[in-house]
Amino acid sequence: MYNFKNVLPFLDEVNYEVLGNENNVSFNEAVNLDNQHETSIIWLKSGLQKNEIIANFIICNSVEGIKVDFNKQTILIVENPKNIFSHIVNGLLVKKKIATISKNCEISEFAKIGTNCSIASFAYIGDAFIGNNVQIKEGVIIYDGVEIGDNVIINAGTVIGADGFGYSKNPNGNIVKFPHLGGVIIENDVEIGANVCIDKGSLGNTILKEGCKIDNLVHIAHNVVVGKNAFVIANAMIAGSVTIQDNAWIAPSVSVLQQLNIGANSLVGVGSIVTKNIPDNEIWVGSPAKAIQKKN
Amino acid sequence: MYNFKNVLPFLDEVNYEVLGNENNVSFNEAVNLDNQHETSIIWLKSGLQKNEIIANFIICNSVEGIKVDFNKQTILIVENPKNIFSHIVNGLLVKKKIATISKNCEISEFAKIGTNCSIASFAYIGDAFIGNNVQIKEGVIIYDGVEIGDNVIINAGTVIGADGFGYSKNPNGNIVKFPHLGGVIIENDVEIGANVCIDKGSLGNTILKEGCKIDNLVHIAHNVVVGKNAFVIANAMIAGSVTIQDNAWIAPSVSVLQQLNIGANSLVGVGSIVTKNIPDNEIWVGSPAKAIQKKN
Amino acid sequence: MYNFKNVLPFLDEVNYEVLGNENNVSFNEAVNLDNQHETSIIWLKSGLQKNEIIANFIICNSVEGIKVDFNKQTILIVENPKNIFSHIVNGLLVKKKIATISKNCEISEFAKIGTNCSIASFAYIGDAFIGNNVQIKEGVIIYDGVEIGDNVIINAGTVIGADGFGYSKNPNGNIVKFPHLGGVIIENDVEIGANVCIDKGSLGNTILKEGCKIDNLVHIAHNVVVGKNAFVIANAMIAGSVTIQDNAWIAPSVSVLQQLNIGANSLVGVGSIVTKNIPDNEIWVGSPAKAIQKKN
Repeated sequence: MYNFKNVLPFLDEVNYEVLGNENNVSFNEAVNLDNQHETSIIWLKSGLQKNEIIANFIICNSVEGIKVDFNKQTILIVENPKNIFSHIVNGLLVKKKIATISKNCEISEFAKIGTNCSIASFAYIGDAFIGNNVQIKEGVIIYDGVEIGDNVIINAGTVIGADGFGYSKNPNGNIVKFPHLGGVIIENDVEIGANVCIDKGSLGNTILKEGCKIDNLVHIAHNVVVGKNAFVIANAMIAGSVTIQDNAWIAPSVSVLQQLNIGANSLVGVGSIVTKNIPDNEIWVGSPAKAIQKKN
Repeated sequence: MYNFKNVLPFLDEVNYEVLGNENNVSFNEAVNLDNQHETSIIWLKSGLQKNEIIANFIICNSVEGIKVDFNKQTILIVENPKNIFSHIVNGLLVKKKIATISKNCEISEFAKIGTNCSIASFAYIGDAFIGNNVQIKEGVIIYDGVEIGDNVIINAGTVIGADGFGYSKNPNGNIVKFPHLGGVIIENDVEIGANVCIDKGSLGNTILKEGCKIDNLVHIAHNVVVGKNAFVIANAMIAGSVTIQDNAWIAPSVSVLQQLNIGANSLVGVGSIVTKNIPDNEIWVGSPAKAIQKKN
Repeated sequence: MYNFKNVLPFLDEVNYEVLGNENNVSFNEAVNLDNQHETSIIWLKSGLQKNEIIANFIICNSVEGIKVDFNKQTILIVENPKNIFSHIVNGLLVKKKIATISKNCEISEFAKIGTNCSIASFAYIGDAFIGNNVQIKEGVIIYDGVEIGDNVIINAGTVIGADGFGYSKNPNGNIVKFPHLGGVIIENDVEIGANVCIDKGSLGNTILKEGCKIDNLVHIAHNVVVGKNAFVIANAMIAGSVTIQDNAWIAPSVSVLQQLNIGANSLVGVGSIVTKNIPDNEIWVGSPAKAIQKKN
């Protein structure tokens, strides 16, 4: 069981106020409002809640409009309840697994693997370079020439460094395969979902920059660059040689045509078909996508 | 070889009429019209057929317009030929494989597996609960905390129970990962295609209710609920916390934005982008999707 | 190191002109313009190049507008520089891997495998027929009844021959599974991307004809036919019984509704939703897709 004392280390550099009972109230499970018990820690989006609040430990940005019992509950008031909830729960309640190399994976003798890495069953690692604290989940395939930084998570079934889709036709109509000699560079703190495909560069590299996040079933073609802390959400299709700048947000099921530039801090709405370059700080939506406003 | 006598057990509670030769006609293969031989069983959509019918055993809803030889062929007249054909062929001609646990899969010692289950090669089962008569195909990954009912089929390469895509940003711009502590509940008679991703709930559960069917390459995000006998067809993207009610039909390549409700018995057309709640019994199509009619 | 003498065998039946220094100039790496060194071979789209050209070996269609040093560089003038570059680089610089059957794959004792095939780790091959010079990459699943020709490449995580998505409802609302007894036929020189799904035919076959190319994360449903040298690009969804004629080009994220015919030499633009048959030699775009012009 945890109580306010256990939570304190996560409140460094955070402005907070604590109300109610700080000492004799404890929790041991993180749930959402629909599943709360007395021993729960929860967070609230706003003070207007249809559910009765019975969880012992409540994180919110205002106590107004919430019916609580100051004798029985701890109420932590912060500006960003979701973030603080995440920090506390990740720190106290999410089980840390010990880093393990499965006996059922296969790793090339020429691979270089850092410290504290997990490589799960049925994963294959070719002649790749992998940093520290990296988690390679079940069935992930990583080919020769892939370089992965620290603290990277790659979810199950994802394929990194396969040949891109590059062909041209001879005058006689025969198809010629363009050579794929490039690599994939994945920087620190990148997370990649399940059943994703990230092709290697044809002649240069495909690059996922620091902190970017790729959701499930995304296609990242050869020579794409995804910027720092950019998000590419589920089922998106990013064609060859596209550059997504830092902090861009590519919503689910978006398609971006080849060689385009998606500006920093831009947002592309769900299902959009992007056929032109997008400037920084703009919101584009539709098929073909058009600017609808500047992002604030 | 089978003949009308073997078919009889599949006609309980079905209104039927049999024409032609019931006794001396037999079949041993189910094919479509383009591939028929004398020893075939076939079904017809309607009586207007450009192909000559040579198959020995014909299931249709009327003999009108069909040229057959009553001495050589058995003609079974039923209201729903496709259903009856499926029942007969599934019963007589589809080989039942003996339930087998492959020596090349990996199962956690804490997993609970019911009777008569098949778990194929390169599948990984964590601390999950699996019912009876379940088929887990090659390369399927099932994580801790997943609960699977009876008669469930999960096709190759599908990942069930990976962390959802949940992040928020600190005021300093740093990305915080939201904790993923929920599970996945898959009820009886669910079938899931190949290379599908079904993320676990963040704090509650992701739920696939009884009899629902999920096609290939579908993304089901955290905390989604798919209703009874609902269909989600290939390449669809269902974002976090969406509820799809019973008997809804989500056509291929549809995207549904987060937290929406898709009504019971509704139909969403191919490639639609759903940005609003859909009431029961309606047909919605387009980008953004709009109601086009009530479903009858 | 290679020089013009090594390149000569790739210029049979090609009209070319060679300028600059043919003899004392050599290369050992193929790169793009951004990554060139003196020891590079490169190709140029056109004569207008912002980058300075320092690569020793340059393939282009005209020397006009390019600043080169005829004493230090070899310039090969051809009509189609990209094709010739591909031929030379594939021949000289792309490492040929020796065909290997991994000790970590599983192959049915009833499978028939030709000569010079590679089958990688965690691949599963059922009772299938596989020709010569076939590359089956990591984690590929190939079911019973699949027939594969010569020189086929199937990338990691792809599933070939799973049951299609075919159901009908009984009058009482119960769902009946349509039997899936067909196969998959993959002809010579086909290449298939990663995490693709190619379902088997329900009663006939799903067929990928000679030389067609399928990109990552594509769904090919039961009984689809993909024509000779046709291209189906990433994240496309081809529904049941669609026929794609020879040399058609299906752009990324396209959805094609069931039983449609996509004409020979047609082109369907990115993200299009195809709801009607497309005649030969036309370009269709949009949702629903409409003809925008004849292809020349």
